[in-house]
Amino acid sequence: MTDEKNLDLKRQKHILKVLKFLQEGGDFTRASILVNKSKNMRIKSASIKGHPLNTLYAENDAIEDLINNQLLPDLKKWQQSGENSLLLNRIKDELVKLHKINRHYKRKENSLFSFLIKYNLITERTTSSLWELDDKIRETIKIAQEAVNSTPQDDKYVIEAKIEKAAHEVMQMIFVENTIFLPILGMLLTPEDWYTIKQDELEIGYTLINNPTSWMPTKSEIDASNWEHDQVQLTDEFKKEYNNFLKCYLSLDDEINGKADEIQVLNGAENYPVGESESSPDLLFEDLKDTVVKMEIGSLSLKEIPAIFNVLPIDLTFVDKYDRVKWFSNTDRVFPRTRSVIGRPVIRCHPPKSIDKVLKILDDFHNGYADSQDFWVNVHGRMIYMCFYAVRDNEDNYLGCLETVQDITNFKNIIGEKTLENQDKFKK
Amino acid sequence: MTDEKNLDLKRQKHILKVLKFLQEGGDFTRASILVNKSKNMRIKSASIKGHPLNTLYAENDAIEDLINNQLLPDLKKWQQSGENSLLLNRIKDELVKLHKINRHYKRKENSLFSFLIKYNLITERTTSSLWELDDKIRETIKIAQEAVNSTPQDDKYVIEAKIEKAAHEVMQMIFVENTIFLPILGMLLTPEDWYTIKQDELEIGYTLINNPTSWMPTKSEIDASNWEHDQVQLTDEFKKEYNNFLKCYLSLDDEINGKADEIQVLNGAENYPVGESESSPDLLFEDLKDTVVKMEIGSLSLKEIPAIFNVLPIDLTFVDKYDRVKWFSNTDRVFPRTRSVIGRPVIRCHPPKSIDKVLKILDDFHNGYADSQDFWVNVHGRMIYMCFYAVRDNEDNYLGCLETVQDITNFKNIIGEKTLENQDKFKK
Repeated sequence: MTDEKNLDLKRQKHILKVLKFLQEGGDFTRASILVNKSKNMRIKSASIKGHPLNTLYAENDAIEDLINNQLLPDLKKWQQSGENSLLLNRIKDELVKLHKINRHYKRKENSLFSFLIKYNLITERTTSSLWELDDKIRETIKIAQEAVNSTPQDDKYVIEAKIEKAAHEVMQMIFVENTIFLPILGMLLTPEDWYTIKQDELEIGYTLINNPTSWMPTKSEIDASNWEHDQVQLTDEFKKEYNNFLKCYLSLDDEINGKADEIQVLNGAENYPVGESESSPDLLFEDLKDTVVKMEIGSLSLKEIPAIFNVLPIDLTFVDKYDRVKWFSNTDRVFPRTRSVIGRPVIRCHPPKSIDKVLKILDDFHNGYADSQDFWVNVHGRMIYMCFYAVRDNEDNYLGCLETVQDITNFKNIIGEKTLENQDKFKK
Repeated sequence: MTDEKNLDLKRQKHILKVLKFLQEGGDFTRASILVNKSKNMRIKSASIKGHPLNTLYAENDAIEDLINNQLLPDLKKWQQSGENSLLLNRIKDELVKLHKINRHYKRKENSLFSFLIKYNLITERTTSSLWELDDKIRETIKIAQEAVNSTPQDDKYVIEAKIEKAAHEVMQMIFVENTIFLPILGMLLTPEDWYTIKQDELEIGYTLINNPTSWMPTKSEIDASNWEHDQVQLTDEFKKEYNNFLKCYLSLDDEINGKADEIQVLNGAENYPVGESESSPDLLFEDLKDTVVKMEIGSLSLKEIPAIFNVLPIDLTFVDKYDRVKWFSNTDRVFPRTRSVIGRPVIRCHPPKSIDKVLKILDDFHNGYADSQDFWVNVHGRMIYMCFYAVRDNEDNYLGCLETVQDITNFKNIIGEKTLENQDKFKK
């Protein structure tokens, strides 16, 4: 047995201890021994600058620092002082900073959870339950912000209670991440997985830390990992205990969490690999870039097709007939999109509260009740137009759903005509 | 020698007679014997309802009828009458009808000329010269319309002269088409060619006739034609005389019509097959619709790619790195696009007066001076936004130019937000 495998067994044992502690109602604020032991057992990657695991721990450290060394002390001072608007403004700023945890959570939801699926640790439905937990914390922070900004001002004790609740919930999540979630990822993921996550990071951004240095695995790291990875297995005991914990922690209902529900939601195709490198169940055709494909009218080479998608002024995402994200175009997107959602059920890429509405759209497409559905929103002063289209072949078989996202702000100001003939008067 | 081949030789001989007649300054209005003989020698397809050749002759008959039995008699009556506004209005209507010749000409320019290229009868540059002839006739009709609508009204004799000039030019073109152009097409084109033309027709529409019945070649027609077609050849004498005639008829300048110019314009790739069925010089990959292509992020099957292009709310046309039309999407297009332009130099798909401006855009893309160029126009009350994009691969090599055409009228009226949450209030 290698040292690394030995260490992994110890890590699993420690995680099980943490799970037991939490299930027995242990208060994480009095669990510094567990936290420290977990810290001492971190895998090597966690200390490599730029490695996503290092980044995740660094963000949690920054949030902890914000809460313990700024927000809570300022709150205490404010509570004991009279009407101190200087302190109150500082607290407001600190809550704005705390709100930035949104990006850390988005990376979990749109990137990291995919790998718990990839390694069969949790079900797709559980990812939505985990997302719901994040949403609850987001909501608590929002409530604290509303309280601190209320006019007339809420009672001081009410404000204090709301801020403390937000701080407590964030800290509890950090405890769970640092002692359970991140150590599990550390054991399971390959250097290639982490590289996908690194690319996902750049789409979403970071919480309270500077942009980390670049990182990508070396060839030898990949080779070494391939060898090690085959040896590393989570023990059956670990998997069982972990799932018991989740069931209790997330108050999961056995009934609706069953396999049957999962399959119905997906309209088939149970075994569908996750992650770009795995792609889809069909034949894969990769290296003949000069190959020309006969299109309905004319033809395009396999080099031209992605290049055309990339210059289009519309961001495209394709969800296949199994309602799984199959492809998105590599444009500078209005809304960030992470590579690790490839292969995931599209409903699991939406906040849990939107799932029913997304399913309704897809069902109408599957059943032929609708062919498109549009939306528009304001994003930082830009008017963004989105549309979902049912994609069908010429025999009207449903192939999937295309999502388009387009910034139409400039179209609002277009007047008159600009043609080949009068174009010169538009030159700047 | 088959009867058909024998007949073709007779047809060529007759066309040469017509060319000689015209070159010697013969007046087509006194050439009814030539016209009738040509009519008696028409190939069988010309009498099949729905066949594009039948349609082309039928349109010319309808235009002739408009001119000889309505426009010119009304003009004569109006000239001899006093201020007869009833007659004048009829003449105005008849000129509006004559203006519809635009569609007949568009079909020549965007569809029929491609086949003279395909069978090496004329050069690409000559197609632009032929297009210019059509444009001159369009202009003459426009001038006649302006005269008849002028306030204060132009002198009666001026109006009469302008209308007669337009009528004369149109009639002369009909003579050339009926005795030269259409008989040549009749000899050269295969049933498959005509089927492509039939599809092109539906894009552009017809002049002064009801929509013809549907038509497509039968398998036996295609087989028979393949056999016959191999036998039919235009004689060398015919080709030489025809080109001499064109040189004189179009006042072509040897200097700028040379091969060198042609190649420079195209940035290479002399031998590039025309027409959808021929596609491009690379390997062609046709029947593996379930094949999945690895894209930059995720993957798509060869069935999904064209289906995605077809639901996009933007009409796409791709011009390859040789500046030839390689592909366009099969959407319900804002601007009609004909299948037979596939493989043609893109500048030959534009009115001759725009060629320089199109070349400037392409040159800037080739040289890396620009990445996009947009235009917008009003079409029947709709705001149409067009953009040309330089398409490059990830190593920045120029792959071609993408043209997008989008109806943005509805974007102008979009206000507020429509989201998954508030969508119900938008239901009709």
